[in-house]
Amino acid sequence: MPGTPPTRFTYLGPAATFAEQALRTVPAAARAELVPSATVAEAIAAVRSGDADAAFVPLENSVEGAVGATMDELAAGDPLVITREVLLAPVFGCYVRAGTDLADVKTFASHPHGEAQCRRWVRENLPQATFAAARSTADAAAGVAGGEYDAAVCAPVAGERYRLTEVGHDIADNTGAVTRFVLLSRPAAAPPRTGDDVTSLVAYIAHDRTGALLEVLTEFAVRGINLTRIESRPTKEQLGRYCFFLDCTGHVGDARIGEALMGLRRICADLRYLGSYPRAGQDGPHDPPPGTSDEDFADAAAWLARVREGGV
Amino acid sequence: MPGTPPTRFTYLGPAATFAEQALRTVPAAARAELVPSATVAEAIAAVRSGDADAAFVPLENSVEGAVGATMDELAAGDPLVITREVLLAPVFGCYVRAGTDLADVKTFASHPHGEAQCRRWVRENLPQATFAAARSTADAAAGVAGGEYDAAVCAPVAGERYRLTEVGHDIADNTGAVTRFVLLSRPAAAPPRTGDDVTSLVAYIAHDRTGALLEVLTEFAVRGINLTRIESRPTKEQLGRYCFFLDCTGHVGDARIGEALMGLRRICADLRYLGSYPRAGQDGPHDPPPGTSDEDFADAAAWLARVREGGV
Amino acid sequence: MPGTPPTRFTYLGPAATFAEQALRTVPAAARAELVPSATVAEAIAAVRSGDADAAFVPLENSVEGAVGATMDELAAGDPLVITREVLLAPVFGCYVRAGTDLADVKTFASHPHGEAQCRRWVRENLPQATFAAARSTADAAAGVAGGEYDAAVCAPVAGERYRLTEVGHDIADNTGAVTRFVLLSRPAAAPPRTGDDVTSLVAYIAHDRTGALLEVLTEFAVRGINLTRIESRPTKEQLGRYCFFLDCTGHVGDARIGEALMGLRRICADLRYLGSYPRAGQDGPHDPPPGTSDEDFADAAAWLARVREGGV
Amino acid sequence: MPGTPPTRFTYLGPAATFAEQALRTVPAAARAELVPSATVAEAIAAVRSGDADAAFVPLENSVEGAVGATMDELAAGDPLVITREVLLAPVFGCYVRAGTDLADVKTFASHPHGEAQCRRWVRENLPQATFAAARSTADAAAGVAGGEYDAAVCAPVAGERYRLTEVGHDIADNTGAVTRFVLLSRPAAAPPRTGDDVTSLVAYIAHDRTGALLEVLTEFAVRGINLTRIESRPTKEQLGRYCFFLDCTGHVGDARIGEALMGLRRICADLRYLGSYPRAGQDGPHDPPPGTSDEDFADAAAWLARVREGGV
Repeated sequence: MPGTPPTRFTYLGPAATFAEQALRTVPAAARAELVPSATVAEAIAAVRSGDADAAFVPLENSVEGAVGATMDELAAGDPLVITREVLLAPVFGCYVRAGTDLADVKTFASHPHGEAQCRRWVRENLPQATFAAARSTADAAAGVAGGEYDAAVCAPVAGERYRLTEVGHDIADNTGAVTRFVLLSRPAAAPPRTGDDVTSLVAYIAHDRTGALLEVLTEFAVRGINLTRIESRPTKEQLGRYCFFLDCTGHVGDARIGEALMGLRRICADLRYLGSYPRAGQDGPHDPPPGTSDEDFADAAAWLARVREGGV
Repeated sequence: MPGTPPTRFTYLGPAATFAEQALRTVPAAARAELVPSATVAEAIAAVRSGDADAAFVPLENSVEGAVGATMDELAAGDPLVITREVLLAPVFGCYVRAGTDLADVKTFASHPHGEAQCRRWVRENLPQATFAAARSTADAAAGVAGGEYDAAVCAPVAGERYRLTEVGHDIADNTGAVTRFVLLSRPAAAPPRTGDDVTSLVAYIAHDRTGALLEVLTEFAVRGINLTRIESRPTKEQLGRYCFFLDCTGHVGDARIGEALMGLRRICADLRYLGSYPRAGQDGPHDPPPGTSDEDFADAAAWLARVREGGV
Repeated sequence: MPGTPPTRFTYLGPAATFAEQALRTVPAAARAELVPSATVAEAIAAVRSGDADAAFVPLENSVEGAVGATMDELAAGDPLVITREVLLAPVFGCYVRAGTDLADVKTFASHPHGEAQCRRWVRENLPQATFAAARSTADAAAGVAGGEYDAAVCAPVAGERYRLTEVGHDIADNTGAVTRFVLLSRPAAAPPRTGDDVTSLVAYIAHDRTGALLEVLTEFAVRGINLTRIESRPTKEQLGRYCFFLDCTGHVGDARIGEALMGLRRICADLRYLGSYPRAGQDGPHDPPPGTSDEDFADAAAWLARVREGGV
Repeated sequence: MPGTPPTRFTYLGPAATFAEQALRTVPAAARAELVPSATVAEAIAAVRSGDADAAFVPLENSVEGAVGATMDELAAGDPLVITREVLLAPVFGCYVRAGTDLADVKTFASHPHGEAQCRRWVRENLPQATFAAARSTADAAAGVAGGEYDAAVCAPVAGERYRLTEVGHDIADNTGAVTRFVLLSRPAAAPPRTGDDVTSLVAYIAHDRTGALLEVLTEFAVRGINLTRIESRPTKEQLGRYCFFLDCTGHVGDARIGEALMGLRRICADLRYLGSYPRAGQDGPHDPPPGTSDEDFADAAAWLARVREGGV
C-alpha cells in the first residue's frame, strides 16, 4: 500500500543469531523491516517509545540472551503484550571459509554459551584449536569471514549470511534444549481465539505469607484452568515481595479466563496482563473441562439473571 | 385496598403453638390471614398450589415440629424461596384454669417434646402429677380449658388463647435452645439488600467422591464468602448421593454471591436457590472482605473490558 | 461366667419403640441387660456415671426422639465414643385388640410423629377414627391393650409386646426414611478395622471466619479421605462459634486418618473424637485412594528417615 | 590434621570470576582446596564421581553462568544436596594496567553479559573504546595483564589477581541484581537447624492436569509452610510433563516439613530432596505459625496415641 510504512520489528541481535532465525519463521516478519537491538532492554525500549512496532526476544532457556532481562522488563515499566510465541531448538553448525579443512583450524570463535554447548564435538573434531570468545555467534561468523578466526560455532543463518562453508552440522551436545521467543507489542487486542491459546500474566503478591500463592492458584483451579508455567521472582523494589509469571491455557476472550483475571485483579497487590496468543506447536483445539465452557458460563449467567428477578 | 384479597399465611399448627407465636413477630403477619396447617408438608403444599401466599415453618431445632420434613420439602418438588427468618427461644409456661393450685394438679399435658424440656421444673413443682401426651402444646392448653387435664405445659400464646392462668413462667430446663423459623413463598425477587443478609442454597453433588464438597466450599472461599451453616443430607433417590444445605453471608444481588452461585451452578449436579433475606438479629451492615465488594467487582470487570479491547 | 455382671445397655425408651427394635439387631444385645431411659440425656448420663455400659440412641432422622439432644450431649460433657451404628427404616403397623375390626376403631393413638408419618393410610383406612396423642408409640400400644384406645400406630415390637393383632402392615407414607442409631460407651479402644469403617468427630472452629471450615476439610482432602456427613451446629456457649459434626470413611487405626486427626487437633479450637466403627450396611472393604494406604504412609516415613540421615 | 586430605571444592570457573568471589565468603572454603570447573555440568560431575567434595555453582540470576544447567543437573542424574546458599550482588569494576588513563583505552574486554550490564558507564567513560568479547570476565582481566586489551570490565577479585588498577568502581547499570550460589555435595545429613532454614525440592507431577500443582502446594499450606520460590520446568524426557523447583521455609528435621515431604512423596510421580540449609541473610529464628511447631506435632501425636488406646 503506497504511503503505509512497513511494520518494523526489532529483535535481540546481533543479526544472524538465533533470534533472527526464529523470527524468520513468523509469517508477518516476511513483510516487515527487521532491525537488531543490542540488548533485550533496548529492543523493548524501542517498542515502548514507538520506534518499533514489535520486539522479538527470548523468554525462556535462551542460548545467548539474558532471559531474566526479558522478565524484568515485562514486569516493570509501561505494559506490553505478547502476541505470538515461537519455540526454537537451537541448531549449531561449524563454519569456515571455503577451502579450509577442519584439520587446519587453529582458532574457533563463538559466544561463550555456544562454545559450552558444543564442547564434545569440538573436543573430537577440533582438538588442536583454541577458543576465542566473541560477542555473539554472528560476530564469530563475521570474524571468520574477515579472516580473524578460522572457524565459527554459530547458527546456520550466520553461516549463510557470511557465505561460509559448513563443516559441522547440528553439533550441539544437548539436543533437547528449546528456546522460547515472544513477540511483544504495545497493548492491543489479542489475536483471535484458536481453541489452543496461552494467556500470560504477572501477579504481584502483597505479602510473602503462607497461602497467598495458593489463593492465586485457586482462582485458576476453581474455574478449571490449567497452568503450564509458573515462576516466582523476587521484586526489586522490596525484599520479601514476590511476583509470579504465570502461563495458563485459554484466551482472554474465554469466559473462564476472564473471570479468573477479574478474581486475580481483586486479590493481588497488582496484576499485569501479558497477552493471549496461539500456543506454539498447536495440536488443535482443546475442550475446556466440564462446566467451564463459554456456554456453561452463559447458561449460569442466564440462570442467575432469572433467579434475581424471581424466576427459577 | 378494596377488592384486594388479604395475604394468606399458613403456619405449622396447631394454632397457639410456637410457630404462631413466632409468626406474630413478623410485621407483615399483622395484616395477613393466618391459617394453621397440620404438618410442614401440608403448609408447603398450600403455597405450591396457590392456596396460601406463604408458609411459616421451623427449619432448625424445632420444639414440636419435624425439621427434617422442612428440609426434605425444600430439597424436592416445585422450588420455593425463603423471604424471612425468625429466631425464637421457646418460652414454656405452666397454665391452669383459674382457681387451680399447683398442689391440686393431678394430670398435666404437653407435646412429648415439651414435657421432655421442662422435666426439672415438673419434678420440683408437680411431683404428684401424671403426664398426659397431647398432639401439641396447644392441644394440651385446650384440654385444660375443656377440663380434660389440670395443667398444660405450653407456649404463653396458648395460655392466653384459652384464658388460662400462668402458674409457672419460663420453666424450660435448657434456656439456650432457639428455633429458626422461615417464611416460604413461591419464587419471587428477594427482599432488598440490608447489608446483613443470608442466602440459602441446596447443592447436589454428582458423586460422593473425595474433594467434591471441598470444590463446593472453594467456590465460596475464593470470593470471600462466609458460610454460617452447612448440613449434608443423603438424597432419597439414590444411595450415596448427597445434598448440602448451605447458608452464606450475603445477598443474591451482591456481585460476589452472584458469581459464587454461577460457579456452583456449573459444577454441581444440581443447585437450588432458596432465597436471600435479612439475617435475624441483625447488628447492622457488615463490610465484605477486601477485594469482594460490588465496587471491587465492578472495577475488575471494567479493567477486563479494557484489556480485552487492547487497553491496560 | 459366674460372678461377671452382665453388660447393661440403656436405650432411648420407652420399651417397645424403635430404639429397642434397632438394638435387638445388635448381637451383643442378646446377652445384655436392656434398660430404657426416658430421654437421650438420661441414657447418656447413665453411661457417664457408670450406671450403664452403653447407651443406644438415635443420631439422625429419628421418628420419635430428639436427635439434636444426642448431638448436644456428644458435643459437651465427658467424652463418649460410638462403637457401633445401626440403620433402621422405621416400620409402622396398626395394632388392635384381638377381635376388633378396622371399621370399629373410634380412637387411634400414637406419638404425634408416628401419626404424621402414617396419615395417608389412616385417612383411607380409619376415616372415622379420632387421633389421641401418646407419649410414645409404645404407650399407644399399651393404651390399646389397657382398653384406653381402639388402635395403635406403632412399631411391630410394641404390637408383639402387648399381644395385639396387626391390622395394618408397613403403613408409613414415606418409605425412604431411615433412622441412624448409635451405641455409645465411655472412651475405649475402637473395634478392629474391617476395611469399611466410619470415624466420627466434632470439630470446634475458633472463629467464624471465611475459610476456617475450608481448612478443616482440606485436612481430609489432602489425605484422600472421604467425608460422608457434615453438619454445623452453633455452640451454646458463645454466639458466632461453630462446631461441626463430621463422619469420614476410615478407621482411627489407619495412617491417613491418624494424620488427619493430628492435623485437626493442631488447627481446631477443640477436637472431639467420637469413635471409629464398622459402617452399617457394609458392602466389603474399600481400597483407599492411590498414595493413602498404610503401606504408602510407611514407605514415605521410611524414605523420610533415610533422607534425614543423609541417604536418598 | 596430618594424613587428612583437605576438602576439595570445585566451582564454576574460570578462577577470579564471581563464583570464586562468592565462594570466598564461605568459612569452610578458607581451609579447602578450590578448583575451577569449566562448566556447571563439569563441576557437578566432579562431585558425583568423588573427584570433588562439593561444587559451588549459581542457581538463580547468574551474571555469567548457565543457571538452567544447574537446575537440569539437579533434576536428573545421581542425587545431590545443597548444604549452603550464598547471595552475591555482582560488583563490576573497570581495570587497567598501571599507568593507563581512561582516555587512552582503545579496547575493553568482558564476558558479553558483563558488557551488557555496564553499558551506561562505558558509554559515558569509554566512548572511544571498542568492545572485545572474552570467554569470561577473568579472561578479560588476564588479557589486559597480557597486553591484549587496554581495559577489563570484571569482578574486583580478577583485578586483584592480575594486579590491575581500578579506574571504575561499582559500575554496573542495575544495582539490584543478586546471584544465588549453592554449595552441592553428595547426599548427607543436613546441617543443624538454625530456626531460619530453607528446604529445596524438585517435585515431578504425573500428569499436566488442572489442580495437580494445587495439590502439591496444598501439602505445604495445610501445614503452615511458606514457599519462597517456585519454578516450573518442562522435563526433557516427555512433552507435557513438568517438574517444579520449590524452596520452602523450614528444615527437614522440622516435624511440619517432614510430614509435608511424606505427603509429597505419596502424591508426586517423583520427589527429589535437594537439602535443608541456613537461609542466606538470616535475620534470626522465626516462629512457625500457630499449631505447626514441633511441640504442636508432638502434642497431637501423643493425643492420637492416647485416643487409639481408648483414652481421651
